Amino acid sequence: MTAHMTETERFERLKRFFNNRDRLCRCLGIEVTDIGHGTASTRMVIEEKHLNGADVVQGGAIFTLADLAFGAAANSHGTLALGINMSISYTRPGISGVLTAHAHETSAAGPLSTYVVDIRDEAGETIATFQGTAYRKRDKIDLSPWG
Amino acid sequence: MTAHMTETERFERLKRFFNNRDRLCRCLGIEVTDIGHGTASTRMVIEEKHLNGADVVQGGAIFTLADLAFGAAANSHGTLALGINMSISYTRPGISGVLTAHAHETSAAGPLSTYVVDIRDEAGETIATFQGTAYRKRDKIDLSPWG
Amino acid sequence: MTAHMTETERFERLKRFFNNRDRLCRCLGIEVTDIGHGTASTRMVIEEKHLNGADVVQGGAIFTLADLAFGAAANSHGTLALGINMSISYTRPGISGVLTAHAHETSAAGPLSTYVVDIRDEAGETIATFQGTAYRKRDKIDLSPWG
Amino acid sequence: MTAHMTETERFERLKRFFNNRDRLCRCLGIEVTDIGHGTASTRMVIEEKHLNGADVVQGGAIFTLADLAFGAAANSHGTLALGINMSISYTRPGISGVLTAHAHETSAAGPLSTYVVDIRDEAGETIATFQGTAYRKRDKIDLSPWG
Repeated sequence: MTAHMTETERFERLKRFFNNRDRLCRCLGIEVTDIGHGTASTRMVIEEKHLNGADVVQGGAIFTLADLAFGAAANSHGTLALGINMSISYTRPGISGVLTAHAHETSAAGPLSTYVVDIRDEAGETIATFQGTAYRKRDKIDLSPWG
Repeated sequence: MTAHMTETERFERLKRFFNNRDRLCRCLGIEVTDIGHGTASTRMVIEEKHLNGADVVQGGAIFTLADLAFGAAANSHGTLALGINMSISYTRPGISGVLTAHAHETSAAGPLSTYVVDIRDEAGETIATFQGTAYRKRDKIDLSPWG
Repeated sequence: MTAHMTETERFERLKRFFNNRDRLCRCLGIEVTDIGHGTASTRMVIEEKHLNGADVVQGGAIFTLADLAFGAAANSHGTLALGINMSISYTRPGISGVLTAHAHETSAAGPLSTYVVDIRDEAGETIATFQGTAYRKRDKIDLSPWG
Repeated sequence: MTAHMTETERFERLKRFFNNRDRLCRCLGIEVTDIGHGTASTRMVIEEKHLNGADVVQGGAIFTLADLAFGAAANSHGTLALGINMSISYTRPGISGVLTAHAHETSAAGPLSTYVVDIRDEAGETIATFQGTAYRKRDKIDLSPWG
């Protein structure tokens, strides 16, 4: 029971860490909404500043939304993980409302782990699919300032 | 009922088409085992000819196993789809026994569709994750020779 | 001579279009510095707002820098091209100073074209490599407002 | 002069190692033709066994051709490098004659290195672009059996 509490608390602190310290995401209004074992979710309300020349959400904003979910999921195990490779496929434009991303771990072995991130619009349609690979270090993440 | 029969029959014919006409997969002992709506599975029994210099399955054999599942899933809707972009992340080596791949569609809109393929070893561990994007033409696939 | 002038002028207008209308890039201080035949360059001066929790440039900012170079190169031929798939590998952190990206076309045939983008730090070291695929429509880009 | 000889000899041994021990490549008729510092080239004469259901070269054969060039380039520094992530974009079909792939290193820092591979047909047209990331171990490659 205590162990479970500790883990829930750890996920909360990690969320606070990302939402306070990732300045690119703060600048773009992207936040982590949930972290679990090898999973994480993020959200972004589409604003004028996210648009490209064609008046739809710029691919870089969708990538960053997915990348934050990937980063939070990859770091959910308590040790430091660095993103080394990502790929993203876009199938629909993001136009208005809220975009969400959900990352889940497909594999973790040795120094590497892999995640698939599903990015959806407000209607629940997938607009992009992201795959990321992380390199896992042995260093613990210090979350003491975020308690 | 008839429509359902027809579809099941269409999936069977598509499977026969791939298993007969994809000569690379025949050469490598890779076969389609199942096709559904936007999904497909493939399998390969590891043999000497699949190995690389480190005596584990060469990445190209794992890619081809995943690519066949992707291709079968992308063509499951009855119109021609061409693979245009793929990415693959390897996390564990393939050593012996049977490898399987399962593709599912994450998005399909306009001329593009996207698939994630999970590649597993005999113990059920994911050894690689593949993502593929297909370009969908309007041409029907002629499966009449495979009835 | 006139044709050459026209083309130079077209590249200038396209640059103005991206630098005025891509609001994500304006927000992040990313700009197109040069466009040629199937090539483009971009730059970004690293600021506090680009950093992640580890105090290095967030991957999303590097991706957006590369993506803008890719987008400008893909649209350099005068007809509309949409980015459909990208992958990026990070090898060094971006810490301070100016980052630049240079995109060049590796292939263009039928509806698809492919670009490789090299992202470098101020010391000239490659910090990331990006690959993008574009889907080319037949629509002309209207650059008349940017003359 | 001696040092240069030694390196040339090392590249020759590495080439022999790949061409003898990579059994997938032997099965598919793919061979390393050249290895340098962070570079390598491969070739494959298109045969019936490489074709897919549409009678063009199956994507898996093109991937394997590129992957061997990537693997040889990544291992050219004398220490073991493992491929962890690859992406490939196809723009033209491979139909007949000889296909070649050329890999060059775009970045190498710490445990990671990145390569871009250009795959061309006999007419010199790029048919696919491949990007690969390798994880570099400290282990030396034992090439003594290949002298």
